[in-house]
Amino acid sequence: MTTVSIVYHSGYGHTKAIAESVQKGAASVAGTTVNFMAVDAVDWDALNASHAIIFGSPTYMGGPSGQFKTFADATSKAWFTGAWKDKIAAGFTVSSSRNGDKASTLSYFQTLAMQHHMLWVGTGMMPGNNSSKGSEADLNRLGSSAGLMAQGNSDQGVEGIHESDFRTAEAFGKRVAEVTARWNK
Amino acid sequence: MTTVSIVYHSGYGHTKAIAESVQKGAASVAGTTVNFMAVDAVDWDALNASHAIIFGSPTYMGGPSGQFKTFADATSKAWFTGAWKDKIAAGFTVSSSRNGDKASTLSYFQTLAMQHHMLWVGTGMMPGNNSSKGSEADLNRLGSSAGLMAQGNSDQGVEGIHESDFRTAEAFGKRVAEVTARWNK
Amino acid sequence: MTTVSIVYHSGYGHTKAIAESVQKGAASVAGTTVNFMAVDAVDWDALNASHAIIFGSPTYMGGPSGQFKTFADATSKAWFTGAWKDKIAAGFTVSSSRNGDKASTLSYFQTLAMQHHMLWVGTGMMPGNNSSKGSEADLNRLGSSAGLMAQGNSDQGVEGIHESDFRTAEAFGKRVAEVTARWNK
Amino acid sequence: MTTVSIVYHSGYGHTKAIAESVQKGAASVAGTTVNFMAVDAVDWDALNASHAIIFGSPTYMGGPSGQFKTFADATSKAWFTGAWKDKIAAGFTVSSSRNGDKASTLSYFQTLAMQHHMLWVGTGMMPGNNSSKGSEADLNRLGSSAGLMAQGNSDQGVEGIHESDFRTAEAFGKRVAEVTARWNK
Repeated sequence: MTTVSIVYHSGYGHTKAIAESVQKGAASVAGTTVNFMAVDAVDWDALNASHAIIFGSPTYMGGPSGQFKTFADATSKAWFTGAWKDKIAAGFTVSSSRNGDKASTLSYFQTLAMQHHMLWVGTGMMPGNNSSKGSEADLNRLGSSAGLMAQGNSDQGVEGIHESDFRTAEAFGKRVAEVTARWNK
Repeated sequence: MTTVSIVYHSGYGHTKAIAESVQKGAASVAGTTVNFMAVDAVDWDALNASHAIIFGSPTYMGGPSGQFKTFADATSKAWFTGAWKDKIAAGFTVSSSRNGDKASTLSYFQTLAMQHHMLWVGTGMMPGNNSSKGSEADLNRLGSSAGLMAQGNSDQGVEGIHESDFRTAEAFGKRVAEVTARWNK
Repeated sequence: MTTVSIVYHSGYGHTKAIAESVQKGAASVAGTTVNFMAVDAVDWDALNASHAIIFGSPTYMGGPSGQFKTFADATSKAWFTGAWKDKIAAGFTVSSSRNGDKASTLSYFQTLAMQHHMLWVGTGMMPGNNSSKGSEADLNRLGSSAGLMAQGNSDQGVEGIHESDFRTAEAFGKRVAEVTARWNK
Repeated sequence: MTTVSIVYHSGYGHTKAIAESVQKGAASVAGTTVNFMAVDAVDWDALNASHAIIFGSPTYMGGPSGQFKTFADATSKAWFTGAWKDKIAAGFTVSSSRNGDKASTLSYFQTLAMQHHMLWVGTGMMPGNNSSKGSEADLNRLGSSAGLMAQGNSDQGVEGIHESDFRTAEAFGKRVAEVTARWNK
């Protein structure tokens, strides 16, 4: 039995919607319990007791949101005691551009995980939508490896996120839970 | 009168084609001469005498190509003497995915420029293709700020690069030349 | 006449002390006015009217502090209107380790600057303390190029920062102001 | 029984010396076989069959050496077939400065590992040499988390590397082998 925690910030609901798909994918793995928590309502005992932590944030001004970073700073207590050492870590981010410096947010998540001495796992997916036969309906249409990237139009709500991003998020959550199960068997 | 040098590696011609659009844009700025050189045929005197250097490489395995990096290592002579200090620097990259870790290549170019004590200039463009009214025909359709990103399908030649990427490359070359002119006036 | 703004967050005073040395260096350049502001007391009109902006933050958990990032998010208004386009940008960070992921914070500052279409300038200094003849008294003893790095012991106040870091900060502020003057002449 | 491969480039012997300490640490873990190979003499069958791959390179001009990057490009065959999926990955780098953009090289290694769908493991060590009680003799004296950093004076051979860096390298190799053993048990 393993526990995967998803800790996210969502400004307008896009990141929460993607987080829910990640949750669905993780929960589909037998023996996995998923904690789902926003950064302003963190259950620290549950977080510290989980086997994997998945970080989620919109990309604002080229990085994780101030709200997420404020949460990250508060993890310094767990850092000091080594409470997250050898947990599995992964991350996802959402912004309105295809790139929009989403890579910078994922890079920060990796740095945070390394400070905590966690193991980092990426998407494990080949890039989609990168040949003449591809389309935006492909899994991993944005071609990300370090973590999950999703994109939603700036003038729309959750309906502005391509459905393939939800499928990709679900596959990503499943992968993280599978890795977590193997690591803790 | 200012001189802008474009130094690039191209494996299959995609990056060279984008480099040519960058060249066209830079050359459109009055008083600008453009040097165009592949990394295996560098004119070091011309490079060291230029006012701006634009780096170009495909993104291979998440970074600049080995050929480009080998060139970058050879710039250590210019580094040692400070020959590139206060030149303008910029960069572009091409790969087959929307992301595909192109940001990693641009990040390396910035690091190289900083080691040389150059000034870094990005695209200066707002992201395109990020609302319900946008499309792939938008300038900066991939939404990059640190440098120019272009994308070409993995199973096609230059015809697999969207025409908007060529327009974006031209606008990018123009911006770098304009910044170079202002810096050296 | 040019105006350089230093906008910083300081948790325990180390970053503020380094910011003051940056200020001193910038103010030493003829014709330069320096605005000095903490992220919780930003004068937005002054910031938007300045010719250069220098970002400063401690490195907390591998990135800029939550307080700094919250400020960075609030710059989205200036981003939307392009208010910072073509300003000079630079940055500095402080932490208790020699590395301690300070590079991650400087990388974020560069990303923020690129989103705003600013020009990035680094230390312009060769690395110190990297040969058998070197010492911690060398300028740029930590060997940083993208921006200024300073280090202060975790169990001390400002007295735990090496005096060479203050000299390096001053030289860095001077360089940024000189670049700003040249760009706006 | 697990196999850990160390694949490295060394220009002047510093990186090879550190690689040997990593090897010693990895080999100290019961049941671990270590492959040791330079990038110009890669045994691809052995590499593809190993349970973990540790990348090593000097930091040249702010990134992995051209020689290492040329090797990384040649791993595209393994990438295409997914041959390295779910292997453990880690990395180390050496340069003459305390920072000297070593973080950029480690960041590239992580990107390479993510493209291959590997799991990344860092130093797992708290930073040393960051308080009034610390010294350069501390383990992890440079304060790195994403991978191993070592430093050797630019005007010296292997004797210019602090002995604590060799101890840190050994502890790092041990950690990677332990993680590999747990992942494959």
